Amino acid sequence: MVQIMLIPLEEFRRVCQAAMDKYDRLALLADMCRANTLASVKRAGSGHLGSSFSSLDIVTLLYYSEMNTAELGIEHPDRDIYFSSKGHDVPGLYAVLFSLGILPKEQFLSLRRLGGTYGHPDVSTPGIEANSGSLGMGLSKAKGMAFAKRLRGHGGRIFVMTGDGELQEGQIYEALQSAVHQRITNLHVIVDHNKVQSDKPVKEIIDLGDLEARFRAFGWHVARCNGHDFRQLDRVLAEFREVTDKPKILIADTIKGRGVSFMEHPAALQAGGGLYRWHAGAPDDESFTRAYAEITSRINETLRRLGLSSLRLEEVPPEETGPSGVSREYVADAFGEALVELGAEREELVVLDADLAADCRLRAFEEKFPERFIENGIAEQDMVTMAGGLALQGLLPVVNTFAAFLAARANEQIYTNACERTKIIYVCHYAGLIPAGPGQSHQSLRDISLFAALPHLEILQPCNAVETRQALRYCVNGTGNSTMLRLVIGPSPRRIELPEDYQLTPGRGVVLAEGCDALLFAYGPVMLHEALLAHELLAQRDFGLRVVNMPWLNRVDGHWLAEVVAPFQVLYVLEDHAPVGGLGDHLLNVLVDNGLMEGRRFRKFAVEGYAACGTPPQVLRYHGLDGASLAERMWRDRGGQI
Amino acid sequence: MVQIMLIPLEEFRRVCQAAMDKYDRLALLADMCRANTLASVKRAGSGHLGSSFSSLDIVTLLYYSEMNTAELGIEHPDRDIYFSSKGHDVPGLYAVLFSLGILPKEQFLSLRRLGGTYGHPDVSTPGIEANSGSLGMGLSKAKGMAFAKRLRGHGGRIFVMTGDGELQEGQIYEALQSAVHQRITNLHVIVDHNKVQSDKPVKEIIDLGDLEARFRAFGWHVARCNGHDFRQLDRVLAEFREVTDKPKILIADTIKGRGVSFMEHPAALQAGGGLYRWHAGAPDDESFTRAYAEITSRINETLRRLGLSSLRLEEVPPEETGPSGVSREYVADAFGEALVELGAEREELVVLDADLAADCRLRAFEEKFPERFIENGIAEQDMVTMAGGLALQGLLPVVNTFAAFLAARANEQIYTNACERTKIIYVCHYAGLIPAGPGQSHQSLRDISLFAALPHLEILQPCNAVETRQALRYCVNGTGNSTMLRLVIGPSPRRIELPEDYQLTPGRGVVLAEGCDALLFAYGPVMLHEALLAHELLAQRDFGLRVVNMPWLNRVDGHWLAEVVAPFQVLYVLEDHAPVGGLGDHLLNVLVDNGLMEGRRFRKFAVEGYAACGTPPQVLRYHGLDGASLAERMWRDRGGQI
Repeated sequence: MVQIMLIPLEEFRRVCQAAMDKYDRLALLADMCRANTLASVKRAGSGHLGSSFSSLDIVTLLYYSEMNTAELGIEHPDRDIYFSSKGHDVPGLYAVLFSLGILPKEQFLSLRRLGGTYGHPDVSTPGIEANSGSLGMGLSKAKGMAFAKRLRGHGGRIFVMTGDGELQEGQIYEALQSAVHQRITNLHVIVDHNKVQSDKPVKEIIDLGDLEARFRAFGWHVARCNGHDFRQLDRVLAEFREVTDKPKILIADTIKGRGVSFMEHPAALQAGGGLYRWHAGAPDDESFTRAYAEITSRINETLRRLGLSSLRLEEVPPEETGPSGVSREYVADAFGEALVELGAEREELVVLDADLAADCRLRAFEEKFPERFIENGIAEQDMVTMAGGLALQGLLPVVNTFAAFLAARANEQIYTNACERTKIIYVCHYAGLIPAGPGQSHQSLRDISLFAALPHLEILQPCNAVETRQALRYCVNGTGNSTMLRLVIGPSPRRIELPEDYQLTPGRGVVLAEGCDALLFAYGPVMLHEALLAHELLAQRDFGLRVVNMPWLNRVDGHWLAEVVAPFQVLYVLEDHAPVGGLGDHLLNVLVDNGLMEGRRFRKFAVEGYAACGTPPQVLRYHGLDGASLAERMWRDRGGQI
Repeated sequence: MVQIMLIPLEEFRRVCQAAMDKYDRLALLADMCRANTLASVKRAGSGHLGSSFSSLDIVTLLYYSEMNTAELGIEHPDRDIYFSSKGHDVPGLYAVLFSLGILPKEQFLSLRRLGGTYGHPDVSTPGIEANSGSLGMGLSKAKGMAFAKRLRGHGGRIFVMTGDGELQEGQIYEALQSAVHQRITNLHVIVDHNKVQSDKPVKEIIDLGDLEARFRAFGWHVARCNGHDFRQLDRVLAEFREVTDKPKILIADTIKGRGVSFMEHPAALQAGGGLYRWHAGAPDDESFTRAYAEITSRINETLRRLGLSSLRLEEVPPEETGPSGVSREYVADAFGEALVELGAEREELVVLDADLAADCRLRAFEEKFPERFIENGIAEQDMVTMAGGLALQGLLPVVNTFAAFLAARANEQIYTNACERTKIIYVCHYAGLIPAGPGQSHQSLRDISLFAALPHLEILQPCNAVETRQALRYCVNGTGNSTMLRLVIGPSPRRIELPEDYQLTPGRGVVLAEGCDALLFAYGPVMLHEALLAHELLAQRDFGLRVVNMPWLNRVDGHWLAEVVAPFQVLYVLEDHAPVGGLGDHLLNVLVDNGLMEGRRFRKFAVEGYAACGTPPQVLRYHGLDGASLAERMWRDRGGQI
């Protein structure tokens, strides 16, 4: 791992105090924040560089020149308020907050770590004004803040940043029209118009057409300028101060990856063969070194030109992290492969995406069956209801996006489709607690409960590649019901081994590890791995924990269940979900309905409270769901009486 | 009850066969459908006349002149497809489908009755192409249908009607932009621009500004004309046939209540002192008689002018319905009164509405505290996230709309607010199975499950006016948590009597009827009434059913529960909700966690499958949840062994 360096607070103070032109200073400060952003993301091993860099000049200008926030303090009722609606550009904001002394160094250097900062904004972090990360909510939230300031007679302006891909979300337009009608004039929206979504140009995903005309048609005061030109930005913000009868929106033309030549759009897009590489994830050592050198040498050139000494960098101590070995298996890969196979067999199968085709492993299908691949952009509700229309006309839609967005954002649309009794396959990617680095906006711990009350809808979560293929095949060919397929997005911590001849059987699970003292039901590779660790640890204490993989989350074969629980007095369920509305509640109902609770104890281990942000080991431990904690909890529990 | 008359099928045939000008014929047919719409709504006792009448000329033109549907048949793959996205104008569509022989007479005359037609469109009804009623989904669904026709090589065009207030929903804009990008050119949208929402002008709720500019900014081909002028409509549809490179949208300027002088906007709005009376609900006998006479005499004048004999009307046999007595108590009224009281006590309390202020009983607050009442229009996501912004700035938002829309449409926004740990009060009006006339889009049977997995959020449903006032006071002053207050919208079937000195106590219910053979937990006036009926019926058989009102749906005091269940072997829960994720699941967990299931049976009575549409007695009986059915189910169950 390369040595990571930090530009310390004193260096920002030095630049602030030195005599120089305002715009030289802002350019310097922005680049210094870029360097620290890069360092923090590299150290974290993940994070969004592309849009942190495209928005950083604007954020620097706001905090160092336009807003009163640093001066009044982040708790002052009259402070100006800034937040980003997209939220994934937050590493850049953290760098600015650190540079102002608002965010402590230790916390700034602990991006996506327990006790550090979240992968997406969370109000528990100093200087963060709103939670975001799920797109499209920012204007509405800013509208509320502005309304409250007016009602309470507090000063301060509201600035909110949006992405451009984010403008595909319908809620944006709800807020655009209500802000004008409600006369929310103290609202300044800045579109970080960097032209690239998660990995493709906005024009290729869902083109936005004439943005200025669009915003004007909604009655807003619209301005447009180069988002990297501090003079132009200053002029627009001055113009906005004169506009007191309308909310104001600035379309800032920016460059994704700005400040690092090989990360800049369009060059980076060409280098990636049409795909942008630097939206998320940390650069490798070589790319990091090149990028860091490019930024710091530019800073030092400017310092030299201004007669100032070069940057003093501070070494960042390496992070002591235990090895958290992972297998090479991704259930998502198996899903993507099976999708192509089934697409070849069933010509009515169509696949829908909401700008997460790479993460959801849809590219292979997209390339093989372009006419049956529907890119919907970041518009989950439109995608789900469009799937309803496709199904009404005899097609079999497979709807894909992250679980947190699909299950919650489009819940009523899913219900309406269900009422039409058509068959639709909903694939909830990125389900569960892990990875926990991105934070609460992405961790999906309610999706089972959000689907579970829909009549006749079956919910499955496979534990490995084999079961994933069988599960998708079941959804396509094995049932007439609509289904929800729940998938983890990361690499499996271990490859879960199923019996040679394993056949997915409706309502039935399979024993993965033997034991006769207690029975544990779990699902998915993440929690089954912890369950098996617990089994191994308990075995050392001569406590036999039988582990059952139960991929059916709302369907249980009562006869099978009776057999499985027969030898046990103690039943456990390990949820990759909140304690409410998951597998445990369903099993408990079947146990009680079948009179199987007599003389038995039943206990759930689930994600209690709000999900923590951090590395997988940190977060599993925090929630008491890692193998060691589970083993300890069960061991302490063994004396428990019925 | 006045005698209701029907214009029979033969009369439509006669008008179709008679020699006359095309536009005379269309005007006649539209008015004949108006008369039958009015008759069916009067017979149903409810239904939406205002927008049925504003859209009826267009719908008549489509089916009788523009579309091939009647000719090819409603199952033909090449048929043209029409549906309404708003859906509440469906009584008018039913009248047209009846007039074409597509919808059988018996079914047409059974609007909002079990086995008849739904209050909002449902695909199980002949000729209905899509479920709607919750606003904003239609364009997306139509887009899917058009895509499917293209992919499968089927002919036929897609026509979808929207309201104008409906254009406040963000999903509309998701579909507007994706339809253009996805080159869905076979899509014809018609805006029934009648200028009035549920009871106020669109301009007063959330003004739409320059609609034409808005649609053009999204890249659509836009036309505008008088929606009651068949010649103009014909010209626009002809023009649309020439436009093959874009989706097309017609802004049809219409008059809400068109065809009945005293129901027409603006006259009706003035008569109502600024509120439109005829959006929903059946007219009284006198208004019905006047309206019916006005329409039929206009028809007869035209027939006479064309040398044709007057209408032959058919008597509609009166409906034999048992008296379903109701009390005069509305828990919603108590909520509205308590809201004003608490608003006076807590100046940081703000109230948000999504164009249902009258139904949600918010008008009194709006008049008393206009500066703290926020009308958000039909944009639930914007409303909920705006509430989040208000709360972050120290206000206490009370968010109101129907449960089906709030819990599902804005679920992710509610979650994001929850992650910010602010305090917000969500009021889910119109919760539960009853009234069942409007159909599935309005019946909310999943809302408890949609809120239940949110950490630290408390869910309450009061049973009468007293408990409603105490519950709202608890939400405002009694807890630091966010809360969800669940309210039925209709009149209570009986006034539920609570003890003189009743005090709402966290986690505890109260016994409403004594008995020692079984214990039943229920909540809300609708189901408690059925529970008490069951108690009374079982008492006649010397079976003692103790009925407990349990207003806390996800919070139970374990000690209290242990005491309450102690004398019983048989525990029942009656849900005004789906079987999954309601009070029963929560109780079951607490029972098991506290070792209270030993030697006990537990059974839920809940709304299984999809909610039926009909009168309250019909639908409660259909689901086996009326007092008599419940009594019978428990009686049969009494032999059951543990």
